[in-house]
Amino acid sequence: MGRTVIHGGLVVNAGDSIRASVLIEGERIVAVADPESSFVEAFAQGADLVDATGKYVIPGGIDAHTHMQAEAFNSTASDTFETGTIAAAFGGTTTILDFAAPVPGANSLVEAVDRYHAKAEGQCAVDYGFHVNTRGIDETRLKEMTQLVGEGITSFKMFTAYPGDWYSTDDQLFRAYRHLGNLGALPMMHAENGIVIDVMREEAVLRGDTDPVWHSLTRPEAMEAEAVHRCGRLAEVAGSPVYIVHLSSEPALEEVLRARERGVQISAETCPQYLFLDLDHLREPDFGGSKYVCSPPIRDKRNQNPLWKALGNRGLATVATDHCPFCWDQKELGRDDFRNIPNGIPGVEHRVEQIYQGVVDGHLSLNRWVEVCSTEVARTFGLHPRKGVITAGADADIVIFDPHTPHTISAATHHMANDYSAFEGQSLPGSVETTFLHGRKIVDGGRYLGTKGDGRFLARSTAA
Amino acid sequence: MGRTVIHGGLVVNAGDSIRASVLIEGERIVAVADPESSFVEAFAQGADLVDATGKYVIPGGIDAHTHMQAEAFNSTASDTFETGTIAAAFGGTTTILDFAAPVPGANSLVEAVDRYHAKAEGQCAVDYGFHVNTRGIDETRLKEMTQLVGEGITSFKMFTAYPGDWYSTDDQLFRAYRHLGNLGALPMMHAENGIVIDVMREEAVLRGDTDPVWHSLTRPEAMEAEAVHRCGRLAEVAGSPVYIVHLSSEPALEEVLRARERGVQISAETCPQYLFLDLDHLREPDFGGSKYVCSPPIRDKRNQNPLWKALGNRGLATVATDHCPFCWDQKELGRDDFRNIPNGIPGVEHRVEQIYQGVVDGHLSLNRWVEVCSTEVARTFGLHPRKGVITAGADADIVIFDPHTPHTISAATHHMANDYSAFEGQSLPGSVETTFLHGRKIVDGGRYLGTKGDGRFLARSTAA
Amino acid sequence: MGRTVIHGGLVVNAGDSIRASVLIEGERIVAVADPESSFVEAFAQGADLVDATGKYVIPGGIDAHTHMQAEAFNSTASDTFETGTIAAAFGGTTTILDFAAPVPGANSLVEAVDRYHAKAEGQCAVDYGFHVNTRGIDETRLKEMTQLVGEGITSFKMFTAYPGDWYSTDDQLFRAYRHLGNLGALPMMHAENGIVIDVMREEAVLRGDTDPVWHSLTRPEAMEAEAVHRCGRLAEVAGSPVYIVHLSSEPALEEVLRARERGVQISAETCPQYLFLDLDHLREPDFGGSKYVCSPPIRDKRNQNPLWKALGNRGLATVATDHCPFCWDQKELGRDDFRNIPNGIPGVEHRVEQIYQGVVDGHLSLNRWVEVCSTEVARTFGLHPRKGVITAGADADIVIFDPHTPHTISAATHHMANDYSAFEGQSLPGSVETTFLHGRKIVDGGRYLGTKGDGRFLARSTAA
Amino acid sequence: MGRTVIHGGLVVNAGDSIRASVLIEGERIVAVADPESSFVEAFAQGADLVDATGKYVIPGGIDAHTHMQAEAFNSTASDTFETGTIAAAFGGTTTILDFAAPVPGANSLVEAVDRYHAKAEGQCAVDYGFHVNTRGIDETRLKEMTQLVGEGITSFKMFTAYPGDWYSTDDQLFRAYRHLGNLGALPMMHAENGIVIDVMREEAVLRGDTDPVWHSLTRPEAMEAEAVHRCGRLAEVAGSPVYIVHLSSEPALEEVLRARERGVQISAETCPQYLFLDLDHLREPDFGGSKYVCSPPIRDKRNQNPLWKALGNRGLATVATDHCPFCWDQKELGRDDFRNIPNGIPGVEHRVEQIYQGVVDGHLSLNRWVEVCSTEVARTFGLHPRKGVITAGADADIVIFDPHTPHTISAATHHMANDYSAFEGQSLPGSVETTFLHGRKIVDGGRYLGTKGDGRFLARSTAA
Repeated sequence: MGRTVIHGGLVVNAGDSIRASVLIEGERIVAVADPESSFVEAFAQGADLVDATGKYVIPGGIDAHTHMQAEAFNSTASDTFETGTIAAAFGGTTTILDFAAPVPGANSLVEAVDRYHAKAEGQCAVDYGFHVNTRGIDETRLKEMTQLVGEGITSFKMFTAYPGDWYSTDDQLFRAYRHLGNLGALPMMHAENGIVIDVMREEAVLRGDTDPVWHSLTRPEAMEAEAVHRCGRLAEVAGSPVYIVHLSSEPALEEVLRARERGVQISAETCPQYLFLDLDHLREPDFGGSKYVCSPPIRDKRNQNPLWKALGNRGLATVATDHCPFCWDQKELGRDDFRNIPNGIPGVEHRVEQIYQGVVDGHLSLNRWVEVCSTEVARTFGLHPRKGVITAGADADIVIFDPHTPHTISAATHHMANDYSAFEGQSLPGSVETTFLHGRKIVDGGRYLGTKGDGRFLARSTAA
Repeated sequence: MGRTVIHGGLVVNAGDSIRASVLIEGERIVAVADPESSFVEAFAQGADLVDATGKYVIPGGIDAHTHMQAEAFNSTASDTFETGTIAAAFGGTTTILDFAAPVPGANSLVEAVDRYHAKAEGQCAVDYGFHVNTRGIDETRLKEMTQLVGEGITSFKMFTAYPGDWYSTDDQLFRAYRHLGNLGALPMMHAENGIVIDVMREEAVLRGDTDPVWHSLTRPEAMEAEAVHRCGRLAEVAGSPVYIVHLSSEPALEEVLRARERGVQISAETCPQYLFLDLDHLREPDFGGSKYVCSPPIRDKRNQNPLWKALGNRGLATVATDHCPFCWDQKELGRDDFRNIPNGIPGVEHRVEQIYQGVVDGHLSLNRWVEVCSTEVARTFGLHPRKGVITAGADADIVIFDPHTPHTISAATHHMANDYSAFEGQSLPGSVETTFLHGRKIVDGGRYLGTKGDGRFLARSTAA
Repeated sequence: MGRTVIHGGLVVNAGDSIRASVLIEGERIVAVADPESSFVEAFAQGADLVDATGKYVIPGGIDAHTHMQAEAFNSTASDTFETGTIAAAFGGTTTILDFAAPVPGANSLVEAVDRYHAKAEGQCAVDYGFHVNTRGIDETRLKEMTQLVGEGITSFKMFTAYPGDWYSTDDQLFRAYRHLGNLGALPMMHAENGIVIDVMREEAVLRGDTDPVWHSLTRPEAMEAEAVHRCGRLAEVAGSPVYIVHLSSEPALEEVLRARERGVQISAETCPQYLFLDLDHLREPDFGGSKYVCSPPIRDKRNQNPLWKALGNRGLATVATDHCPFCWDQKELGRDDFRNIPNGIPGVEHRVEQIYQGVVDGHLSLNRWVEVCSTEVARTFGLHPRKGVITAGADADIVIFDPHTPHTISAATHHMANDYSAFEGQSLPGSVETTFLHGRKIVDGGRYLGTKGDGRFLARSTAA
Repeated sequence: MGRTVIHGGLVVNAGDSIRASVLIEGERIVAVADPESSFVEAFAQGADLVDATGKYVIPGGIDAHTHMQAEAFNSTASDTFETGTIAAAFGGTTTILDFAAPVPGANSLVEAVDRYHAKAEGQCAVDYGFHVNTRGIDETRLKEMTQLVGEGITSFKMFTAYPGDWYSTDDQLFRAYRHLGNLGALPMMHAENGIVIDVMREEAVLRGDTDPVWHSLTRPEAMEAEAVHRCGRLAEVAGSPVYIVHLSSEPALEEVLRARERGVQISAETCPQYLFLDLDHLREPDFGGSKYVCSPPIRDKRNQNPLWKALGNRGLATVATDHCPFCWDQKELGRDDFRNIPNGIPGVEHRVEQIYQGVVDGHLSLNRWVEVCSTEVARTFGLHPRKGVITAGADADIVIFDPHTPHTISAATHHMANDYSAFEGQSLPGSVETTFLHGRKIVDGGRYLGTKGDGRFLARSTAA
C-alpha cells in the first residue's frame, strides 16, 4: 500500500493543535506521530513526503448542505455532482451531504434516493452522502425512513416553509420526529413559518413590491424564530433530537439557545451568506439583488455578530453552504416578481476559507474552525471518527491550509458552474493548498489531480 | 332619582384604599367623598344609608370568560343566562362577557351574535357583553368583525386547538390579528397546539388509556407554551395586541413574559381551577376525575405557585372563570373515552371570593385583588372607567365584601344550575355580603333581590 | 372653611382618567364628583371655581431626591430650601424629600436631622420630608434609625460609592437593611462600586485625562450594575426591601429586573438627566461638559431607550431629579481635575414637564406619567393616599397641566438659583399652569402666589 | 529508550474515542496508531505490551485544587505531598496543582513558593505545579506575580472570603486581575462574600447555633452568587479572564453563565462534594457533620442536578477536589463552635472514578468525562497539549480505566492519610486499573510501583 507522510505542519483538530507527522497508509491515517520518533523515519522510507511547514494540516471539510443539480424553482441548479464536487475539493471540502428529493408530485423517499444514487454514482470528486427531503409524511413514509436508515441515510429534512409543496403539518412533524428519534436518526428542519410568509409575499406583490429585497422583507426574522421554537417544542414532546438547517437570524438563534436550556437536544447550522452578506446586497440595483436570493433570506447586518459569536461559543454547531447555484439567466425568471427568482447561492467552494476569516477576526479559535467545518458535522451526521478528525484509523481526507496566502473570490476564477459569485471580490486571508481524499492528492497548488468518481457514497451511522 | 350612601367601609380600588363614603344617585356613582364633609350629610338626607363598617367596598367583579347555555361537546351547558347570572351576582360579579358562537357548520359571526342577543336579552341578572368565537376566517369574517366592532363587540376568540372545528390556520390568525389591531379590537386566543394534541389523544385511547387523567396527560404544557409563543410571534409581525385566555401552566406563562420583553402587547388571564386544582383531582376514582375536565387541562401542582406569583406581579393580567357547567349525567358521556367528556367547570359564582384567598395568603394586595377581578378586566375589554372602578361617573356596580365571614363552597348551597361543585368543600376566608347593580341591591345577606332582565347588554369601546 | 371646585378638566390619577369635578374644602379634597350631580352645584355656591377645560388635573408632583443648600464637594448647593421649593412649585412639584446629611466628620443621624429641620422650617414653598444620608453604621446608628422612624423619617440612604466618606461596608449595609426591614423602613442605595471607581479616577488623572468626560468614563456601567446586584443580594439575605436611587444605565436596570425575578423587593428611580442627556454633553468644549457632571454619570445614549421603556412597563418605579445645583464658578473648581467638579445638576423645576414628553413620545400613558412622578413616589415613601392621588381625604395638592402650551427650558427663565441649565433649550410640549398646595393656589399663570413657609414637614409612615 | 504499546483499549480523548494503539517511547507518547498498521508491529518488538482490551485508555487526571500538608485553621492538613500524591496516583490523577500559601502574617508570594518548592521537591508520586494564595495585594505583590509567571507559576488565587486573613478588597482584585490579564496569567477566585458571612457566623454562635450544619446555613448561596457576580464584573472592567474555584450552588452557577453571555471570559470548577453530598450529611449526629465541613459549604440537594447538568453542557469547565484532609481529632477543635472546625475534605483519590458515575448516569459523555477531569484542566492552566490528551508528543501520563470493576470508597481502603472518608460507602461503577506517569507504571492492580520523587515540578505556560 502506498504511504504518505505529511510533516512539518501544525496538525489542527477540534481538540488540539500539535506539531506532528501524519502517517498515511493506503486510504487511511495510520498514525499521528512524534516526528522525532525513530519509527517515523522508517515509515518514511519509500513514502511520499509532503512538507507542510508553516501550514495547517486539518481534516477535510464536510459540507452538510448542498443541492447539486437540484430540480427546484422551475429550474435546475447549475452544478452537477461532478462540477460541484470538484469545486468542493478546491475549497478543501472532501465530503458533501446532498439532499435527495422526490420530484414534484411524488412523495416516495426511497425512489428519491434511488434517483440520487443514479445521479451521483461515479460522478463525484469527493465523498458524499444523502439526507432526504421529506413531504407527505404518513405510515408509508415512516416505513421508508426505517428502510433508508438501514441503508446509511440517517437524516431527513422537513419543512415548516413552502406550503403546498414541502410543508408538513405539526402532526406529521411530531410523528416523524418520534419515529426518527427511536431509530437514532436525525430530523432536520427548514424552520420558517411559510404559512404567514406566503400571505406577506402575496400582499407585497399586490402592492407592487416586486424587487428582490422584498424576498427578505416578507420573511421576517420573527417567523423564523417562531418555527424554530415550534420545532424545539415538538422535539421536546417527541423526545427526539432536532437539527435546524441554515439558521439566519439572532431571534431564531435565541430560540435554539432557550430550547437547549430546557433540555431539548437541538442544534443548528448557519451558512456563510448569513455571516457575510446583508440587506444592502439584496438592494443592489438593476436586479443585482437577485444574486443573493436564498431562503431563509439574507438579513439585516446586525444579525451577523451574534451568529459569529454563537459559532465561537457553541451556540451554533456547524457551518454548511446550502450550495444551490443558479445562473444569471435563471435568476431572470423573477425579474418581475421576486417570488419567481430561483432561490439559492453558489458557495460549496469557499466555506472553509471563509470561516477561517472568523479565526483571523477573533471569533473562533483554530480548533473551533476545524470543529464547525468538519468535526462537529461528522459527529452530527454519523461520520465520526471516520471523518472529521486526523487520527489513527480515520479516512485520510486531509487539507493543507496556508494561512498566509490570501485568496480573492471571483466568478472569473472559481470552479463552480455558475456565472456570478455572491461573494465577488471578497478577500480572504488564507487558502487551501492541497486536498487529500482517501490518502491521495486530488487538488494541489491550484490544479485538480483527481479522477471522476473518486468520491464514494457514505453509509452513515445512527446515534449510539 | 334615588340616592344611596355607602359609608363606613374601606373603599378599595386598584390604585388605593381609602375610608370614604360612596355617593350614588340613580344608576351611577356621583362621588367618592370625605365622610366628614358637610355636603355628604346633606346628600344623605333622604338617601338609603348602607353601613359598610368593617367591610371592603369594591367595584363589582367582571368575569370575562363565561359560556352560559353553550351548545358544545354534544351537550348544552347547564346554566342559562338567567341562572348563571344570578349565581354571578351572589358571588359579587356584576358583569359577564360571554362567547357568542356559531352553531356547528356555520361560521357567520353576525348570526352568532344575533342568536346570543336573543338568548340573553331580558334574561340576565347582571350586565353582559359578547366576545365572538371565530372560525373559517376569510374576507367575509373580517367584514363581520368590522361590523360587530361598530356594535360594541370588540373582542374575538380564535383557536389553535380543536382542529376540524374551531381551529384556525396561522395565515387566518395573522390576517385577523392585523385587521383587529387596525380596528382597535382585541384578538383572544385559546392557545394549545391542537394538531399534536389530537395525535396524542388518539394514541392514548388506542392504548386503552381512557380515564379522565389522560385528558391532561395528552395536552402537555409544552404544547400550550408552543401555541402561546406562536400567537405572540404572529402579533409581533401583525402589530396587534393579543390576549391569551385561560392560561394554565408555567411554561406558557414564561412565553407570555418573554414576548412582552420583546415588546409584544400580550396579556393573559388565568382561572381559579388552575390556581386551586391539580392532577390528583383528575385521578379521583369512579370517574370522579371527570368533574375537573376542562381545556386547557388541570395541571401538575407545581404550576400553581408561579401562576399566583404572576397574578401578584402583573405577569398575568386577569382572572376569569371559563364557566362552562355540565351536570353529572352529561359528564357520563365520556365514561369510556375521556375525549367525550364535555369540557368545562362551573365557577362563575366563586371567583371574587376565591381570589381573595390569594390576598390572605400574601400573593396579592387588596388593590391587586380588585384589579385582577375587575379593574384590569374593564380596561382590557373597553369598559373602563364605566366599570371596574368606584369613582365619579362610573356605574354603581358595587360589592360589599366581608373579609371575616367565611364561606364554604358546596353544590348543596351554590346557585349555579349544576349538581356538583369542582371546589366542593373549599373553605374561603371572606364572602360577598351585598351586590349593587346600577345603584340597586340585587343580592343582600344571601337573598336575591333583583328582577329578571336587570342586566343590560354592554356595547364596548375599542382601544384609544 | 374655604371651598374650591376645579371643574371641566380630565382628572388623571395613576389608575384612571375621568371627567369630574374636584371638590376642595379647606386643605383637603373632599370629593371627586360627577359634575352633573345636584350637590356639586350646591357645593359650588360661594366656592372658588377653577375652569380646567382642556387641561389635565393631576396630583402634585413628589420629588423624592433633592439636595437643597447641601454642603458637598467643598461647596454648597446654590438653591436654598426657599428658592428650590419655589422652583419646585413652578414645575408642579408640591412635595420634596430632601437628604439630611451629617457634616464632614460627624456621623450622627439625629443631629443631621435636627440641623435640617432648622434649615427647612418656615422656609419652604411646598411640603417636605427627609431621608437621612448614613455612614459609620454601628449599634448607635441603628438606634438612631429606630428613633427617627418614630419621628416620621422612614428612609435612609447608604452608599457603595465614595470610599473614605459615605461608603459603607457590606456588613454595615447588611445590618442596616435587616434593621430597617424589621422597622418597616426603607434602605435607599447609591449603587456604584466606588472602590474600583476610585482606582480608575486616580489612574485617569495620572494619565492626564482630566476633562469632564472622564468623570463618566471612569465610572463604568458595569460598576453600577455590580453594586445594584450586590445590594439586591444583601436585601435577599436580609429579608428587607431596597430602593436604588438615580439608576442611570441599562446593565444596572437589568440587575434590578433579575433581582425582582428572584423575589427580591427591589425598586429603582431614574432621573431626567439619564433620559435626556448623553456623553456628547460631557464632551462640550471649553469645560462646558462640567455642567453635566453628576453621579452616577451621564451615559452613552443607547441607555436612554431602555430606561424609558422600563418607566413605561414598571421596570423602574419612579422619577426623581437628584436636584443638586452648582453655579459656574463652583464648577470651575474642577477645571484642572474632573474629580474636583462639584457633582450635581439643577432640575427640581422641570421633572413633571420633562416626563410628560415621554407621554407624547409613546413611552408612558398619562396615568403612568402621574404614577412615576407622584403616586408611586407617595406609595414608596409612606405618603399615600395622603399624597399622590386626587381622591377624597387627600391633601389638596393639585396641578393643572396644560398639554398644549409648550415650554422651553432656559436659565434665563427658570426659577432655580442657578446661572445655567443642564437642559438649556429643551422644548417641552406641555406646561404647568396652576399649582395648588393644601387647597390654595401657590403658582398660577407664571406667578408665584405663595407665602414663605407654606410648606410643612411630613412625618411619613412605615410599610404596613 | 524503553518502549511501551498499550493496545486493545478504547482511547478516549476529549474529542473522540477510537480503537488504537498508544505507542510510548521513553517518557512520551510518540504515536496513536492504527493497530493494524505494519509499523506498529515493528515498534512492538521488544516493547512492553499492555493489553487494555475492554478498558478505557485515558489521559491521566489533573486535579487543579489540592492542599497538601497545608497549614490552615490552626492545624495542618494530614496528607503530605508524598502520601497525597500516592493517593492521587491510585485514583488515576497524574498531576496536581497545589496552592503555595504565605504563612500567617506574611504576604510574600515568592517566599511562599520557595517554601512550597522545598516541601514538594523529591516527595511527589505525580507531577505537580503551584498556584499561589494571594493577599495584601500592592505593587510589591504585582511584581512578585510577574516574577513567578516567568517561573511557570501562572495562576493566583484571591479571596472575597476570610476577612482579616485572605480577603482582598475590590480595588486590590481589580488591579491584580488587570495585571494578570496583561501577563496572560489567570486570576482564580474563592468567591463568597466573607464580610456578610462573618456577621451571620457570629450571630449564629451568639444564638447558640454551634453545630456543624450552621457552617452551611451561615454561608447562604446568595452570598456565593454575589461574589461570583462581582468577580465577573471586575474581570469585565479589567479585561481579564477569571476562574471561579469550588463553585457549589446553582445561583452561583447562574451568575457564571450570565457573565459569559455578556462576553466575560469566566470559567468555573466544581468538586465531587457538591455533586454527591448535601445538608443531611452536615446534620449527622454526634458531631458527625464535621466530616463534611468545607468552604463553600455542602448545600441543599437541589443544587446537585444543575451542577451535573452544567458539567455536561460546558456551563462548568472542570472538576477539582479541593483536597484538604483533616483527621477526626483535628475536627474536634470545633465541637463547641463550628467556626473552629478545620475546613476541608479528603478527596484527591476519588475524583476520576466519582465523575465516571456521571457518565453512567447520563450526565456526561465519555469524552466530556475526560475533558472535565483532565483536558480542560490542562487547557485552563497552561499544560495543554503536554498534559490532558493522548496524542503524539504528550507526556505519557495515561490511565487504564476499567468500567466494569466497581469500587466502594472506604477509609479502611483508601490511601489518603485520613482516618475517615467523606464518601464512606459510596459505590462506584468503575475503577482505575493502571496509572502511567512519564511512560512508566506507577500504579497497577492496586499496587504502588513508583518511587518517591517520580513527580516533577511543572512550569506552566501563559495564555497565547
